[in-house]
Formats: sequence, structure tokens, C-alpha cells
Amino acid sequence: MSPAELHADSIVIDGLIIAKWNRDLFEDMRKGGLTAANCTVSVWEGFQATVNNIVASNNLIRENSDLVIPVRTTADIRKAKEQGKTGILYGFQNAHAFEDQIGYVEVFKQLGVGIVQMCYNTQNLVGTGCYERDGGLSGFGREIVAEMNRVGIMCDLSHVGSKTSEEVILESKKPVCYSHCLPSGLKEHPRNKSDAELKFIADHGGFVGVTMFAPFLAKGIDSTIDDYAEAIEYVMNLVGEDAIGIGTDFTQGHGQDFFEYLTHDKGYARRLTNFGKIVNPLGIRTVGEFPNLTETLLKRGMSERVVRKVMGENWVRVLKDVWGE
Amino acid sequence: MSPAELHADSIVIDGLIIAKWNRDLFEDMRKGGLTAANCTVSVWEGFQATVNNIVASNNLIRENSDLVIPVRTTADIRKAKEQGKTGILYGFQNAHAFEDQIGYVEVFKQLGVGIVQMCYNTQNLVGTGCYERDGGLSGFGREIVAEMNRVGIMCDLSHVGSKTSEEVILESKKPVCYSHCLPSGLKEHPRNKSDAELKFIADHGGFVGVTMFAPFLAKGIDSTIDDYAEAIEYVMNLVGEDAIGIGTDFTQGHGQDFFEYLTHDKGYARRLTNFGKIVNPLGIRTVGEFPNLTETLLKRGMSERVVRKVMGENWVRVLKDVWGE
Repeated sequence: MSPAELHADSIVIDGLIIAKWNRDLFEDMRKGGLTAANCTVSVWEGFQATVNNIVASNNLIRENSDLVIPVRTTADIRKAKEQGKTGILYGFQNAHAFEDQIGYVEVFKQLGVGIVQMCYNTQNLVGTGCYERDGGLSGFGREIVAEMNRVGIMCDLSHVGSKTSEEVILESKKPVCYSHCLPSGLKEHPRNKSDAELKFIADHGGFVGVTMFAPFLAKGIDSTIDDYAEAIEYVMNLVGEDAIGIGTDFTQGHGQDFFEYLTHDKGYARRLTNFGKIVNPLGIRTVGEFPNLTETLLKRGMSERVVRKVMGENWVRVLKDVWGE
Repeated sequence: MSPAELHADSIVIDGLIIAKWNRDLFEDMRKGGLTAANCTVSVWEGFQATVNNIVASNNLIRENSDLVIPVRTTADIRKAKEQGKTGILYGFQNAHAFEDQIGYVEVFKQLGVGIVQMCYNTQNLVGTGCYERDGGLSGFGREIVAEMNRVGIMCDLSHVGSKTSEEVILESKKPVCYSHCLPSGLKEHPRNKSDAELKFIADHGGFVGVTMFAPFLAKGIDSTIDDYAEAIEYVMNLVGEDAIGIGTDFTQGHGQDFFEYLTHDKGYARRLTNFGKIVNPLGIRTVGEFPNLTETLLKRGMSERVVRKVMGENWVRVLKDVWGE
């Protein structure tokens, strides 16, 4: 099987995309052979603004139903594959949208949300993000984890602080993930995870999606798809071939205003970080170039069997563990 | 001057009342000779529910303008004294009502809110309360403190955790308070403050209002007004005669449902504590019995000059320091 044939035949899952949602992107997803993606519909928004984002996304999916379908179960992911469409799974990058209501967890599950990051960069009612001192998982946070377990929403820890992450990993009865992270073994950064952290989540049944966000890669915006592949190999060496997947963090279509929103607490308050210029690694600058990743992993010696796992099969398995369907 | 005359002549401030707001209470405030009180209008409520509470309170004050007037400045407190009415100052027991908007601090100042407790028992966006592990003041919390300093809202730390409290005391450029607390030197309790904590706030220009809430007193519901006076003397011995006042925590008029609301996180989630039966100390069971406190303090040997300070003059001075008017 050629790399292109393997890619076309594989289940390809992107564990985190926070791109500008529009038809151009959906077309690029098809070009990239994406079977499904965890698409961010809430970062700093509260309950109602998040519901509004979901309504807008529902409309967009309906208007582009020749390209995309909604994903609530892993059966929907298989259906997307069969129909040659991309499955859109809603995810949050912040549990802030639950506000102070445990009951909103189930509400959002019913609205199609399957993955929720517990904190985004700073402290919320649940715990603390990775850009400030982290006091750990709160009592309310433990109640939220239990409810996410109950209704079947995966806990994501990518932007979560080290202490809160460890405590969520221990608290959750279902697998949790870093949906999009890089190893600090390749570059020290508050957003990157240490070898110990990567091993810890895997040892507790968790999952790691590897990102390629340039500011967290050693070579920054001069990185290539081979640097991304190196990071994938580095993580796989720590967590094994079953606990690893892709989580690109594609921000395609967004301008500087969006990055200003992301990098300020609550979207407007103090600045937390400054990414500088963002350019994805050469060879995978756009979602449409996704097939190059399959090719690169094969070229570097990864077997077809493992490539299939990394590109999507592992994500499907762990999502089924969490969602139960 | 007889004790009754002294009480009638004094400025009498209650630094914390969370009673059922109605005409009965306002009549009892007049009976008790209360010049002004910090009246709680938000505990677990978010922004809009808190605005609604304020609207309801505004209406209630207007309907009972023969008994009460609104307080926004210390001049309003003097006016209440001159008119023989009780000044109603709005306060929050939780910064939760600011939600994630720094701009809401000024909005609430404009709506008449003069004192805000940073956290109520558990973690919020600002810091952590006294009933769970406390990771300290968040970055957003520092921005909120700065804004409260700027617009003139006093930071209250009564239900706040030890670490967050210490960091607010250090962060604030204006005096902060424990508006209603008891010393753990007389009874160990998560809500009570150690000698070191009481000294620390006073050494940093802060203020302590002494409560009489039975569950935090050594003798519980068997306490008398003398036990309350003992606590006042204990605290005064640590913080001095200028940094101390009254903060009763009267809950008059509320039933068990309200205590259930208070003692569960967010008003409904996990139970944080259980007060059991609540009976105020004999001699000061109701707001109307406030004159007994002046009498008791005098009887135990406190001078008229110091009694006037404790009963209200100190509160007026520190509020003027924070409010600027």
C-alpha cells in the first residue's frame, strides 16, 4: 500500500483543532483525509455564549452536510469514514462553560460535547491551568470529574497545571487525555509535559495526543514535519503505541485578534503568554496536508500497523472507552 | 452616661448581617440602635441574580424609608445617625458575582456595593475559601483586588482560606478586613482565625470584626453575651483598640433551607459543613438586643471611649480609608 493509499484507508483523527469554522476548512479537512476532529467550541465563554457557539456550529454543519457530519459516538466516526465525510466532534478547552452548575455537564453532553479540558491556562472553579501557580483540583472539580465520567465526557488536561492534571488523572474513573501536547524533553515550556507526566498519564490508562504548535517545538517556526514526527516518536517511546494519537492544534483561518483572545486571561484581562508569529511546521502547514504526516511516519520507519493506530485508531478506542458507544 | 444613653449616642455598626430582609428586621435594627450594617446581597449568586437581589433590596429600602436609608459613603452613615434611621450598606460574601469580568467590580460599586468577600468557603476565580485546600490568590484575583482598590470596595476575608487571605492582605493597597470572625485561640474551627492571622492583618493596616456565630464559639449554642464579649476582648488584645469592630453574622428570619443553601458548595452541590442548631448567645439573640452589648462591654471594664470605637467608630474610619468618602 502506498503512503497515500494507507492514509486514505486509515481512520484519521485530529484530537484538537481550533480553526476558523467555515466551508473552506471543511473542504481542507476532506482534502486532508480527516475522518473526525475534536473541534473547540468554547475557550473563555460562559454557558450561554457557548450554547450560542454550538448553535452556530450546528447550522454550519447542516449547511455543509456534503462535507461534514456531527459526531456523538464512535459509530458516527465510522459512519463519517464510510460516507467520505469528516466527523465534527464538539470539545471545550475550558470547563468554565459549565459555570457553577454540575447539571450543565449533562446538558452539554446532550448538545454533542464529547471532550472538555478542565482548565484553560488559569484558575477556574475546577482547578488551575498551566500558566499560573496551581493549587490542584478543587472539591467542585472532583464533582465535575465524577459527572463527566457518569455522562461520558472525556477529561482533557493539555492546558491544565501539573498538580491539577495529576489529581484529575487519579480522580477519574475513565481514561483522560492530554489531547494536544508536546514533551518538555524536547523543549522546556509551561505548556509542554515532562517525561514523568507523560508516563504518569499512560500508566493510569490515559492518552496523549501530540501537537505540532510551533511555539512549543524546539525549532519554533523553523520546524518541519520531521520535527513533528520526532516528537510523536519521543512520546510513543514513553507511553507506548496504544496510548498515543494526533492533536494538531490547527488554528487555520484565525487572525492575530484570535491569538490575543487566547493569550489573555478570560479573553481580555492580563496577558499570559505571547506566541509571536505562528507558522505550522513545513509539510503540514494546513489541514489539507495531513497525508504528509502518514508518509513521514512511514518514511521514518514506523510500521503501517502502528501508523494506523497513531493516526486515529487509538483515539477511536479510547473515546469508546469514555463514551461507552 | 448610662449604658443605654451611651449606646443611643454611639455610632453602632454591624459589619455583617445576613438576615432575612424585611420590615420586621428593619424595625429590630431601629430597636437595637443600629446606625448602619453591611448587609449581604450575594453569596452563591452570579452576576444577574445578584443584580436582581440588589433591585429587590432597593425596593425594600424605598418601601421602608421611615426606618432605613441606603449607604454608599461614610457621610451616609452620619446621615443615618442624624435621622435616627439605619443605613443599609450592600455587601457580598463571594466575589463570584463578578464572574469573569473585572469591569463588574465598578458596576457593583455604582450599584452601592461597598464590601466584598473574596471567596465563600470554596474555590472561585479569585482564590479559595476556608473549607477546602487553599492554593492562594490567583492572577485574576490580583487583578480583582487592584480594581476593588481603585473603585473603593473593601476586601473581606472572613470565609477565605489562610493562604489566599495572607496574599490579599499583602496585595491590597487599601485596608482589608475579616468582617466577621472569631479567634481560634478560643475554639479551633476552619472558620476561626489564629492569633498569628489576626496579628498579621492588623500589622498590615487591616481590620477585624468579631462575630458571635454560635457554632464557632467554644460553648456553642450555650454561649452568652459574655462569651461574645470575651472574644471581643481576646481579639482586641491582639489587634489593638483601633482595628476592631463588630460583625455579628445575624441570620435572623432565615429557616433551615437557607442554612442548607449556605453550607453546600454553590448553594446546592456537596455539603461543606453542618452548623446544627443555631441559637445566638443569650443576651444578644436578636438585632434588637444590640444595646446589651454596649452594656456588657462597659460592665466588664471597657472604657466608654473604647466602647464607642468597638461599637462603630472604628468601622467608620476604616470604611472611609477604603471608600475615600
